[in-house]
Amino acid sequence: MELYALPTPAAIVDEVRLSRNLARMQARMDALGVKFRPHVKTAKCVEIARRQQALGAYAITVSTLKEAHEFFSAGFGDILYAVAIAPSKLPAVEDLVGRGCDLKIIVDSIEGAQAIVARRRAASVRFKVLIEIDTDGHRSGVKPEEARLLDIGHALAAGGCELLGVMTHAGSSYDCSTPEALRAIANQERDLCVLAGRRLRDAGLPCPIVSVGSTPTALSAEDLSGVTEVRAGVYVFFDLFMAGVGVCGIDDIALSVLTTVIGHQADKGWAIVDAGWMALSRDRSTQNQAIDQGYGLVCDRDGVALDDYIMTGANQEHGIIGRRDGAPDPGVSARFPIGTVLRVLPNHACATGAQYPEYHALRADGTLQTWPRFSGW
Amino acid sequence: MELYALPTPAAIVDEVRLSRNLARMQARMDALGVKFRPHVKTAKCVEIARRQQALGAYAITVSTLKEAHEFFSAGFGDILYAVAIAPSKLPAVEDLVGRGCDLKIIVDSIEGAQAIVARRRAASVRFKVLIEIDTDGHRSGVKPEEARLLDIGHALAAGGCELLGVMTHAGSSYDCSTPEALRAIANQERDLCVLAGRRLRDAGLPCPIVSVGSTPTALSAEDLSGVTEVRAGVYVFFDLFMAGVGVCGIDDIALSVLTTVIGHQADKGWAIVDAGWMALSRDRSTQNQAIDQGYGLVCDRDGVALDDYIMTGANQEHGIIGRRDGAPDPGVSARFPIGTVLRVLPNHACATGAQYPEYHALRADGTLQTWPRFSGW
Repeated sequence: MELYALPTPAAIVDEVRLSRNLARMQARMDALGVKFRPHVKTAKCVEIARRQQALGAYAITVSTLKEAHEFFSAGFGDILYAVAIAPSKLPAVEDLVGRGCDLKIIVDSIEGAQAIVARRRAASVRFKVLIEIDTDGHRSGVKPEEARLLDIGHALAAGGCELLGVMTHAGSSYDCSTPEALRAIANQERDLCVLAGRRLRDAGLPCPIVSVGSTPTALSAEDLSGVTEVRAGVYVFFDLFMAGVGVCGIDDIALSVLTTVIGHQADKGWAIVDAGWMALSRDRSTQNQAIDQGYGLVCDRDGVALDDYIMTGANQEHGIIGRRDGAPDPGVSARFPIGTVLRVLPNHACATGAQYPEYHALRADGTLQTWPRFSGW
Repeated sequence: MELYALPTPAAIVDEVRLSRNLARMQARMDALGVKFRPHVKTAKCVEIARRQQALGAYAITVSTLKEAHEFFSAGFGDILYAVAIAPSKLPAVEDLVGRGCDLKIIVDSIEGAQAIVARRRAASVRFKVLIEIDTDGHRSGVKPEEARLLDIGHALAAGGCELLGVMTHAGSSYDCSTPEALRAIANQERDLCVLAGRRLRDAGLPCPIVSVGSTPTALSAEDLSGVTEVRAGVYVFFDLFMAGVGVCGIDDIALSVLTTVIGHQADKGWAIVDAGWMALSRDRSTQNQAIDQGYGLVCDRDGVALDDYIMTGANQEHGIIGRRDGAPDPGVSARFPIGTVLRVLPNHACATGAQYPEYHALRADGTLQTWPRFSGW
């Protein structure tokens, strides 16, 4: 089947761009001398994770136990579940570990550590645990200088868990937009996570893993001394938000939504398409960046960006395509006749990909492959 | 299984509230003397559509051909696909009609009508078509006074299609917040759609169906003379946005996301939960209403709203629970200890429901049933 014959809306992956993005990140990791543990939460697609592995990724990061199950079933053994463990999820972790999955969990509180230790007493397996470090006040984690960092470490070690080290995610890197700011947050992420690891070791606790990362910091770091592994996810596809941060160009964005023009409001200069927020997601994260891309940047069906046109509004299954400057386009009906096939680049690839059960991978020769993806918890 | 033992995040449907919402709408339709064609795009759940049918709904509305396929397979025959038909989707429509589905499509342009007629020439079936009317400048449709309304009607009739009438959706009702404004838009939706139908009839064209609706107008209309059927979708669950519009109370909201506390940032007064925007959706539509509910309103595990607490921020799999007024809550760790199970009411039920493969329906006696739902196109 050819691209233009796919039922719309559909999620299209430009395989040439994808391959370039994968190679770029692995080359950086190799140059920085760190191991790479890509976050598979963006694509949730075994085919893509296998390509990351083939290029050199040694392990994976997941955001849900569903991802852990699916990727373990597909042959991925070393998995970091990078969300502080809910005590009620420990039986499921135990089950996966008991079946041979090298699943690592994280914790950032005494209470959480105590819950793991309590479960450990009755468990048939040993839990492998990293402590989450807060390196930028973004969300979760223990600050590296806090006394409870050591308390958590000692509680885990004394309780029969395997303390594997520290991990952090400097999510505030998403708020940056200059190379200088990105380098600064990458350095901060490294420094504070390495500091936390040193404090553990100085207290006689093990810390073989020092894990950092986000797509912006991974692509901006210049020296990762003391770090053993890096995690990054959205770089596989990139998106308009990452272009706004400055770590990719528009023509690096590998995910787009194929859509068909179904109508016009000529007096308003609108074309109406059959992809609304259900197809793009409700993500409007470029709203607070220098360039607001609406619900997405419009491209022709070959993926060439039409810079003046964005999805200015979206209902559940309707998208409104209009001029970026808000001026009515008197020629909109002739420019985008009914039946015209367009592609829309998303604000946030993780959110947009999640709306689809599969990707249509478009190869350099124009042929398509179907790559399943999954969702849920 | 009991509610608190479900893996989180999970989508919970309060069956008592659901039943009350279903009964309320059908009673209104009966009182207004119109047939009811609920929009099944909100729940995408056969179990719920069967309950609507049992209460008196005579047909359904869908937003995708996937919904048409799924509901036709489940025994629903009379289906209105309420998005202007893309010409490339006509073969799929033909297939469904050929298999016995009483599928109706809509169009709002001469070009669209010509595409249907062109396809009709080669088709083995007759297409049943309604013309979409623009009654509020919201999105799509032909204005009732436009000459092309009759041109479209004549083109369809002359081309061998079965012209069934007119339909409209006054989506701008979502911007209302007073009973007066809601009644006014309901009257406008009725008047302009009835006018369009009258123009068709005056021109000698058939118009057996005059279809209007949105949840706010359906619940606000006082007289629907000339209207034959009403459509509404989100009323099954309601949501925080509809509460902001004023057509339901917080305690009518039947959909919530079950989540578990996994950590705290005590100095910021935050509790971190395992439901982020993947679990709630990226919908922030209450942002522009009088009461901004963040990513959702926090309830205890029994569904009782904790009015001072909302989800103030969300990452992919992390939600931040904090005080609505932004003040740090020094007692947050004691108030919501790790492992605490909470429920979060969503801004927009259509967007939140779409993130899940199933609902857990909580019955009055506390037992749970699993109701599958589907997604995709």
